[in-house]
Amino acid sequence: MTTKIPTRLYLSEDEIPKYWYNLRADMKNKPDPLLHPGTLKPATVTDLEPVFCKEPVKQELDDTTRFIPIPEGIQEFYRAYRPAPLIRAYFLEKALGTPAEIYYKFEGTNTSGSHKLNSAGPQAFYAKEDGLTSVTTETGAGQWGTAMAMATGFYGLGLTVYMVKVSSEQKVFRKALIETYGAQLIPSPSNTTESGKAILAKDPNTGGSLGCAISEAVEKAVKTEKCRYVLGSVLNHVLLHQSIIGQEAKAAMDKYGIKPDIIIGCAGGGSNLGGLIGPFMGEKLAGKSKARFIAVEPASCPTFTRGRYAYDFGDTAKTTPLIKMMTLGSGFIPSANHAGGLRYHGMNSTLSKLYKDGFLEARAEVQTDVFDAAIKFMKVEGILPAPESSHAIKAAIDEALECKKTGEKKVILFGLSGTGYFDLSAYMEYNNKTMSDYIPSDEDLERGFASIPDIPQNRG
Amino acid sequence: MTTKIPTRLYLSEDEIPKYWYNLRADMKNKPDPLLHPGTLKPATVTDLEPVFCKEPVKQELDDTTRFIPIPEGIQEFYRAYRPAPLIRAYFLEKALGTPAEIYYKFEGTNTSGSHKLNSAGPQAFYAKEDGLTSVTTETGAGQWGTAMAMATGFYGLGLTVYMVKVSSEQKVFRKALIETYGAQLIPSPSNTTESGKAILAKDPNTGGSLGCAISEAVEKAVKTEKCRYVLGSVLNHVLLHQSIIGQEAKAAMDKYGIKPDIIIGCAGGGSNLGGLIGPFMGEKLAGKSKARFIAVEPASCPTFTRGRYAYDFGDTAKTTPLIKMMTLGSGFIPSANHAGGLRYHGMNSTLSKLYKDGFLEARAEVQTDVFDAAIKFMKVEGILPAPESSHAIKAAIDEALECKKTGEKKVILFGLSGTGYFDLSAYMEYNNKTMSDYIPSDEDLERGFASIPDIPQNRG
Repeated sequence: MTTKIPTRLYLSEDEIPKYWYNLRADMKNKPDPLLHPGTLKPATVTDLEPVFCKEPVKQELDDTTRFIPIPEGIQEFYRAYRPAPLIRAYFLEKALGTPAEIYYKFEGTNTSGSHKLNSAGPQAFYAKEDGLTSVTTETGAGQWGTAMAMATGFYGLGLTVYMVKVSSEQKVFRKALIETYGAQLIPSPSNTTESGKAILAKDPNTGGSLGCAISEAVEKAVKTEKCRYVLGSVLNHVLLHQSIIGQEAKAAMDKYGIKPDIIIGCAGGGSNLGGLIGPFMGEKLAGKSKARFIAVEPASCPTFTRGRYAYDFGDTAKTTPLIKMMTLGSGFIPSANHAGGLRYHGMNSTLSKLYKDGFLEARAEVQTDVFDAAIKFMKVEGILPAPESSHAIKAAIDEALECKKTGEKKVILFGLSGTGYFDLSAYMEYNNKTMSDYIPSDEDLERGFASIPDIPQNRG
Repeated sequence: MTTKIPTRLYLSEDEIPKYWYNLRADMKNKPDPLLHPGTLKPATVTDLEPVFCKEPVKQELDDTTRFIPIPEGIQEFYRAYRPAPLIRAYFLEKALGTPAEIYYKFEGTNTSGSHKLNSAGPQAFYAKEDGLTSVTTETGAGQWGTAMAMATGFYGLGLTVYMVKVSSEQKVFRKALIETYGAQLIPSPSNTTESGKAILAKDPNTGGSLGCAISEAVEKAVKTEKCRYVLGSVLNHVLLHQSIIGQEAKAAMDKYGIKPDIIIGCAGGGSNLGGLIGPFMGEKLAGKSKARFIAVEPASCPTFTRGRYAYDFGDTAKTTPLIKMMTLGSGFIPSANHAGGLRYHGMNSTLSKLYKDGFLEARAEVQTDVFDAAIKFMKVEGILPAPESSHAIKAAIDEALECKKTGEKKVILFGLSGTGYFDLSAYMEYNNKTMSDYIPSDEDLERGFASIPDIPQNRG
């Protein structure tokens, strides 16, 4: 008997997961530990607590506990906007004429417009629990900054957001939204930190970068009373919080007996991809699934497809712990690709390890192809996708068209991590045919690789 | 036994209503008929079909059929973004410390960002059924234009949108979104119509108005082959389509045995208010409910609270049929209030009749008070509301605070008709404390009233 699958597969409120899933617990080959940049020894709770909140530090270092309970105070926050819908892309399937079944988990129905809220809430909650009065963070495209502004507004905490200067000038409405939620927004680099001043001294007209904004936010946090730093991607505790995406998707699919053959996510620092694939990858690691996993990144910032697997810093000022990851080097200067959330030199260590071990595929796409796919999608599915998320759409369409060729009825799941309301200038550029595709040359990459630290762990 | 009510009350897909509810069928005192402006006789199918699509004309003139089936081709469209959530405002209740229960029906989860899509879909579907190749319309704030762009994109129809010039200049991203969906956008007044040219000849620097954009869109439709005009509010067939809002809300509340005591909607032309209150008002008219119904309008455009009940034109150029309604006169010049969707001189005839007969209350609010309420709401409920919808929030908060005084545990339902992603310049103005409140003087209103036609039906 076939049950007709609805267009939108909602879980009921009491089916929202009450545990986060820690994928590392199910990996035989664990990701390498964070290293203290001075001692080159594995980072400890003591090393990390001056910067991060207590519980996230514990979560960051825990690679053995499979399920971590979600505190009721965070479950309450999740209930304000979750469950997020899993949508059967009937209209896209029809438009493509594919025999494949396409599903997407849509994380853009909350006001911040993306999945980032799934970790912003927990991090604000833990900051409040630690007795802090404020937190600092950085934001590039603005999705994370908006999510943190919402979360700190909800829990009643102060927030300072260092926003990449060029973004804060282009995205005045993102800025307005962050400020409307009560956060303080500082274009970075700024004169409020030593690292900001140093960069401005070198180049007063710089538009800033994510790496630089991270340096400023970390510095501000450690120099402020009752304040810590929060980060929206790259680290493993962020992926842990984001596991809610994959768990909800899997719960909804399980209800209808649907097993995905291909799971696709866009990849910047890894928060969305890691969150989506978590429980499905767990089954693969346990030998219970033969699903393929595909990370999609911009050709302008090809961390997986052209990067190196090495210990590297998370920021430009080289102040963070060292992370073993796929990296283009913290000195890599990403181009002005419109997918601001994917413009980061590194990649979460768990995903990097899975990639190196052959569990995860990766591909890179140029932005005009990505926008082609976005427009095709939005005209039939009705949702305006973020440029970041549109990378996943591109790969999903390609896989569905491949099924059309072969006649295979595969089940494709992709993550639609956010909406593009604040990216309409990019769509205008696309409409006006003034969008260009930039692919870094080998020389560009070599300049980035030169910034990777020359430490024993990176040799041989 | 009390069932715990979830934060988000979703219907399942097969619970989406398959019939629209025609409130007029249950009114003993029907709204007065549309009049042909030349003959002053009730408008007929023959009068209306040169301008509108066939089925909407039938629906417009039908005040006796209670339930009208939704064609499968429109049900399919609805499934792409419905059911819309009914949300229990637990967080707002807590923040206000009220014993009242507050619910809101949230129509902003689709990309167009508002309830307007509920009628845009049907109207595009019917245009396609009539064998048309394109339709025309106007848009002020842009919600309706975006909804029509999505709907015509979905059904494969051409669309020309006349957008009030000052809006098209301020809201470049709205414009971009409409164009991304493939529609042609023309700032109004324009040189593409005689009515536009006439207005430009008088005042080349005018910023335009909704009444003027309507005139242009209607003219363009009647002069173009296989083309008709579509309208997003005011008319009764639009309210019919919007009845999906109230029916879904009622179905979700019925599941939990919840009966609203107060039902609140913002009021511009009436599409959202009429759609929300429909089935609840039907119960009141049948003597089965004692609920109160409250329309909330901007103090700058006080159609209900300071208008006259008379036959009037829907547009500035006085080309539409005459509508018996609450009106400020088609010559009334609304101020630059940020709730663009509520800046209209008239009001749907059914709602006007219900107001005159004492079934519907109305109140007017100044915009700074409305934004105060919006910010209070968004900080706890997480959703960025449209300025239009925030009028309903203001009244809901006031009623909840009244309950706090009296200790009454009333059940309040309001319509959150849309999101404010394209209204962030208004929020910026509010944040910067440069927002001002304008209330028209009695003289301003008299100037508007002078434009109401002096016909026998309006005398005595």
